[in-house]
Amino acid sequence: MQKDISEAVVRRLPRYYRYLSDLLDEGVERISSGDLSDIMKVTASQIRQDLNNFGGFGQQGYGYNVRYLHEEIGKILGVDRKHSIIVIGAGDMGQALAKYTNFERLGFFIIALFDIDPELIGGDVRGLPIYDISKLPEFVRGHNVDIAVMTVPKGSAEDIAEMLTSLNIHAILNFAHLDLDLPDDVVVENVHLSDSLMRLSYHSLINRESLDGKE
Amino acid sequence: MQKDISEAVVRRLPRYYRYLSDLLDEGVERISSGDLSDIMKVTASQIRQDLNNFGGFGQQGYGYNVRYLHEEIGKILGVDRKHSIIVIGAGDMGQALAKYTNFERLGFFIIALFDIDPELIGGDVRGLPIYDISKLPEFVRGHNVDIAVMTVPKGSAEDIAEMLTSLNIHAILNFAHLDLDLPDDVVVENVHLSDSLMRLSYHSLINRESLDGKE
Repeated sequence: MQKDISEAVVRRLPRYYRYLSDLLDEGVERISSGDLSDIMKVTASQIRQDLNNFGGFGQQGYGYNVRYLHEEIGKILGVDRKHSIIVIGAGDMGQALAKYTNFERLGFFIIALFDIDPELIGGDVRGLPIYDISKLPEFVRGHNVDIAVMTVPKGSAEDIAEMLTSLNIHAILNFAHLDLDLPDDVVVENVHLSDSLMRLSYHSLINRESLDGKE
Repeated sequence: MQKDISEAVVRRLPRYYRYLSDLLDEGVERISSGDLSDIMKVTASQIRQDLNNFGGFGQQGYGYNVRYLHEEIGKILGVDRKHSIIVIGAGDMGQALAKYTNFERLGFFIIALFDIDPELIGGDVRGLPIYDISKLPEFVRGHNVDIAVMTVPKGSAEDIAEMLTSLNIHAILNFAHLDLDLPDDVVVENVHLSDSLMRLSYHSLINRESLDGKE
């Protein structure tokens, strides 16, 4: 069933899951596509189309059952399971991620970090071990690793990504400032913070110009 | 001129800028849309369409002048200027960002951090001061702040974002796990790491299923 869901819908699912979590926290049990549309700023027809992928959630004039929808989307996204994550690059960003325990509430558990820096290797972050990157193959053979997070310098990112792929890790969260060129069955989510800053910079320039124009 | 560039093109510009920077580093002076298409995995016609927005960069049969294009896109994105950034939330993520000096190479300078934690306030990260959040209005009046980065818990994110908006900060990089509801002239770039992890989780499940199916 899952394989029929389009990539565009998959990209939107985490956002649905997030809003449904918030509704549950607020004690909301049912919601119409219209109300969901208002809070999510997506058209009601888009919502109906997206959620129809899972069949039988909505009832005409009755709305969606929030808990059920939350649970089903959670299952599809796999947040009802435990996912083991390794972090490659135990610098400031890698350590900050390892300290962020909120990921665990969604089933994402960082189990180890890897680095090349002798001063970091052998140490730990919040009790999570930092290993020498050379131990990565051995570690992956001995543990079930679902996702790798890469917080490494641009220059070493391609080699690391190829190593991960050869170790059969097919899901990568990439913070390095480049696009990884990997086989089609490897899914990469990029966090390109510099790109985001440049977009903000563009808009703040435009904004400054229009303010100047007003004066 | 800038105002005619569509949002979709603007979203893609940082990626062009990144590839052009790499080409410059490699000493490449000219590149055809076809070659750029190969390395960027975007169709050549998309590239020509995007870059035509700036006029006169490409010459038939001659290719783009990499340095010129890099410089022009850099100007449009504003990376030829200095941008002052404040970080709201001086926890692990905020501190990791403040320590990441590569942003400065693109003109993005973090000038201060803000927090509510008495143990952090008065301290510093890499020499950058951490102030009490209550000092934010005074600070913004005395400094030219272009961009605010929010690394705060979900619960306080909306109040902080409203405060920033009221202080005339119109560009926000948001790490809090919610969508901010702000006026149209405020541009927000979201870094929703949990959403990214959920997408990876979905794909790793699919992958696991198809591997199971093969066995």
